Amino acid sequence: MRARIEGWRHTLYQIIYQSNTPIGRGFDIALMVLILASVLTIMLDSVAEINQEYGKELYAAEWLFTVLFTLEYGLRIFCIHKPIKYIVSFYGIIDLLSITPSYLSLFLPGAHYLQVIRILRVLRIFRVLKLVRFINQANILVNALLASRLKIAIFMFTISTLLIVFGSTMYLIEGPENGFTNIPVSIYWSVVTLTTVGFGDITPKTDLGRAVSAIVMITGYAIIAVPTGIFTAELSKEMKKQRKADQRTCPRCRHPGHEKDANYCRICGMELPPSH
Amino acid sequence: MRARIEGWRHTLYQIIYQSNTPIGRGFDIALMVLILASVLTIMLDSVAEINQEYGKELYAAEWLFTVLFTLEYGLRIFCIHKPIKYIVSFYGIIDLLSITPSYLSLFLPGAHYLQVIRILRVLRIFRVLKLVRFINQANILVNALLASRLKIAIFMFTISTLLIVFGSTMYLIEGPENGFTNIPVSIYWSVVTLTTVGFGDITPKTDLGRAVSAIVMITGYAIIAVPTGIFTAELSKEMKKQRKADQRTCPRCRHPGHEKDANYCRICGMELPPSH
Amino acid sequence: MRARIEGWRHTLYQIIYQSNTPIGRGFDIALMVLILASVLTIMLDSVAEINQEYGKELYAAEWLFTVLFTLEYGLRIFCIHKPIKYIVSFYGIIDLLSITPSYLSLFLPGAHYLQVIRILRVLRIFRVLKLVRFINQANILVNALLASRLKIAIFMFTISTLLIVFGSTMYLIEGPENGFTNIPVSIYWSVVTLTTVGFGDITPKTDLGRAVSAIVMITGYAIIAVPTGIFTAELSKEMKKQRKADQRTCPRCRHPGHEKDANYCRICGMELPPSH
Amino acid sequence: MRARIEGWRHTLYQIIYQSNTPIGRGFDIALMVLILASVLTIMLDSVAEINQEYGKELYAAEWLFTVLFTLEYGLRIFCIHKPIKYIVSFYGIIDLLSITPSYLSLFLPGAHYLQVIRILRVLRIFRVLKLVRFINQANILVNALLASRLKIAIFMFTISTLLIVFGSTMYLIEGPENGFTNIPVSIYWSVVTLTTVGFGDITPKTDLGRAVSAIVMITGYAIIAVPTGIFTAELSKEMKKQRKADQRTCPRCRHPGHEKDANYCRICGMELPPSH
Repeated sequence: MRARIEGWRHTLYQIIYQSNTPIGRGFDIALMVLILASVLTIMLDSVAEINQEYGKELYAAEWLFTVLFTLEYGLRIFCIHKPIKYIVSFYGIIDLLSITPSYLSLFLPGAHYLQVIRILRVLRIFRVLKLVRFINQANILVNALLASRLKIAIFMFTISTLLIVFGSTMYLIEGPENGFTNIPVSIYWSVVTLTTVGFGDITPKTDLGRAVSAIVMITGYAIIAVPTGIFTAELSKEMKKQRKADQRTCPRCRHPGHEKDANYCRICGMELPPSH
Repeated sequence: MRARIEGWRHTLYQIIYQSNTPIGRGFDIALMVLILASVLTIMLDSVAEINQEYGKELYAAEWLFTVLFTLEYGLRIFCIHKPIKYIVSFYGIIDLLSITPSYLSLFLPGAHYLQVIRILRVLRIFRVLKLVRFINQANILVNALLASRLKIAIFMFTISTLLIVFGSTMYLIEGPENGFTNIPVSIYWSVVTLTTVGFGDITPKTDLGRAVSAIVMITGYAIIAVPTGIFTAELSKEMKKQRKADQRTCPRCRHPGHEKDANYCRICGMELPPSH
Repeated sequence: MRARIEGWRHTLYQIIYQSNTPIGRGFDIALMVLILASVLTIMLDSVAEINQEYGKELYAAEWLFTVLFTLEYGLRIFCIHKPIKYIVSFYGIIDLLSITPSYLSLFLPGAHYLQVIRILRVLRIFRVLKLVRFINQANILVNALLASRLKIAIFMFTISTLLIVFGSTMYLIEGPENGFTNIPVSIYWSVVTLTTVGFGDITPKTDLGRAVSAIVMITGYAIIAVPTGIFTAELSKEMKKQRKADQRTCPRCRHPGHEKDANYCRICGMELPPSH
Repeated sequence: MRARIEGWRHTLYQIIYQSNTPIGRGFDIALMVLILASVLTIMLDSVAEINQEYGKELYAAEWLFTVLFTLEYGLRIFCIHKPIKYIVSFYGIIDLLSITPSYLSLFLPGAHYLQVIRILRVLRIFRVLKLVRFINQANILVNALLASRLKIAIFMFTISTLLIVFGSTMYLIEGPENGFTNIPVSIYWSVVTLTTVGFGDITPKTDLGRAVSAIVMITGYAIIAVPTGIFTAELSKEMKKQRKADQRTCPRCRHPGHEKDANYCRICGMELPPSH
């Protein structure tokens, strides 16, 4: 009996977690469709005209999706060997977060819109596609981002300091009578201006304020070069490394990534076959 | 008789499709002028004041262009060996699309503005110019874009997910009373903000909304680094490849990468064959 | 007696200026917290609703912070060997500037908002963190910025000239009746437009004005490539230099550029000394 | 007599055109100051409040500057050997253009604002500074721009085509009732949106219009990568070339730019001294 349950659990595991069997692949694709349909339902539900006419149908659909996803979440926990590991994983948390808003909405009206977080589940698609090339490319991007994280952090810290200084200066110059109601609002204006978004909901009116704004704008325009430069340089490095890794492997110690001009393995000293 | 038609067809083919004869070149240039004149006519026609005064003349001109282009389309099909191949090609479709709106406008008023799609026909200019250097440079750009398409796709997918999450969050925070009428509208706002366009037609009014907006803006400002970095890295690689292909190898010591002005191998002193 | 004071001064110096002792580290962290709390106090004070309710408490807190920072400033001067060198240093000036606004506000109401300049003191955090990696990365960024300063200066000079020309042209075309009140205002508009901020507080109304604006916008959109390109190229160079400095040279054949994991020279097979 | 005039002309030439004598340098600096003062005068003159109070003084100053610049222009023509060459040169045209608006304003009121074109004369500063490093850096930038001009042209051509297509599409979708008055105005909106400026003077109101706008915005946001990538790649190449040129020169044929690994001159086959 237990063996049968075990076998059944294993089959379920293969269907839900893997996608190398036709049925597993089918499950993954069906899941993607359900997620997108569910997110679309919530979006349409928020449109007043559609809500008035099809409110009930959408409400039913939302609950249907919730029940299905709850069921799926239960099965995911049930059929995996180490359920805790899944529950605390990135996707485990996303999966839980994407069903709770519905139940929450029973007590808190409006909370059901939080269901859109379900969209994050589609990020699984990269796993579903199981395209080695996709994974490789995504890894290169992620590695470049990781390699630049310290530099980006320094940049962000400096920018934040600048934003506070610029915001407060503008508050002093323009003041509440020109829409710079208080320092937090002025910092919001700094963000809008430095990032070159420029909503125009708050704009400087005084001559001095416009002069300072010009400095903020030119600063924002020029320093975009910094994160771009950081990421580009790291990505170039990462791509070169990748290309190098595609090169030769030592026949004795199996160490990969020998450069084109190498005659000997740099790890074990073995003579390498001539590079092509 | 048939031979004469064949000969005539071939001459026509050379005039219309090729540009190495003076008459073929003349045809191409005349076509470019006609296309631009036709697009200008449609633009002017859309300006109310001009339309009121010269409406009839512009209408006549539009039909003249349409008849000419229809004739040209017919000849293109007639004089080519494999008409189907042309019809389903990129330019074949553009050519067809640029004449249909006029005929459509007989039933559907306003449709004639769709004629501006004719502007896409001027992309042929690169072929007309027949400048090898232009083609080379365009190829480098296209290769770099192709090489980065997987990475760009991953980036776009992640951005789309972010836009939905940001949009829905702002809908929940700001709500219809502050212009965030529904989730699709809020996603439109996300796009406006993340891409740093910042129309200002919809802006956050609450403190929390402004704080979240600041995050969206800084995200948009910083992640522009990602596509830029991807394309720059790929383009650098592509340009290096191109330069390597232009370089020479020593016939004695096989050392590669000799510059264009080199007469002797810089490693072994051997005289190099003249560069082309 | 004098020796005791000397000893006391030295201990104080270690606590305030260094962070390798537990108490020194504690002092630095406490200082960071105080600075952030102080900046937050000023921000909250500027919000009308909060000011009305907690005005007195915030006023007291501001003075408390000022007294503490004044005390700290005095101790910094007292315990260092060369006080003048500290006073005229970057952080010495920031430290002085961050206490003066409070005293100034006794005569000049509103001046106390200038206290936000205190935020610049948190830049010390990099020194506090004493993370070698952070310092290294920051150095790379600063070196790249220094290396590109001449090129950036040329770019900025050219942009400024362009801004004046574009601004004046728009003043002539649009004139005061369309919001381009005078040339300085039109130059402000140029900055808003060229940097792609686009507040929309001043916009062209005439056809010619819109055509010129389109040129300004496309210019701004395209030339962002220049500072980005400059910084990226310099950063790449700087990072390569850094990597080379991290690499090793074979003691036998002198071939440079051996990677960190290399045990043997890849050219002559010689065993390399262990990497640090 | 003639010799004396010749001698006097030559001295004048040295003062006006060269800056290696103290008096020549003094002349150049005085000229820069005059140009900036003149531009400032025109700017202030355009401010209504200042004009009302100091209108006469500014008017007098403008004429003073004009007379001085006219005199300088005359002397420049008089003291140079080939006046025609100067007159048709870039700076010759700028010099002429910067005095004509004043005389034009006698017949055409308002024309005197065109005097701001004088600002372009300050570009001479690079020549005045005579800093070799500045010239070198500017050359690198200009070379990179020249090297990328074909690629940038292809990019600009494609963008223009896109702008027309996007603009016309939006005209059809939104129409005059939503501010998209005619196709040229819609193309202006395309430019505002694609370049991420986003004034907000014209914004889409319909759902379909907003969806298309989102596409325009994301396109604009992503393709900024193209010019940036082009310029960055060309600049990197140019900087590498420059660094190479700093390397070694052949002792026989004086050919510069030998790479670090070169043992023989690649032009004349001469053995090179070992690289340091």
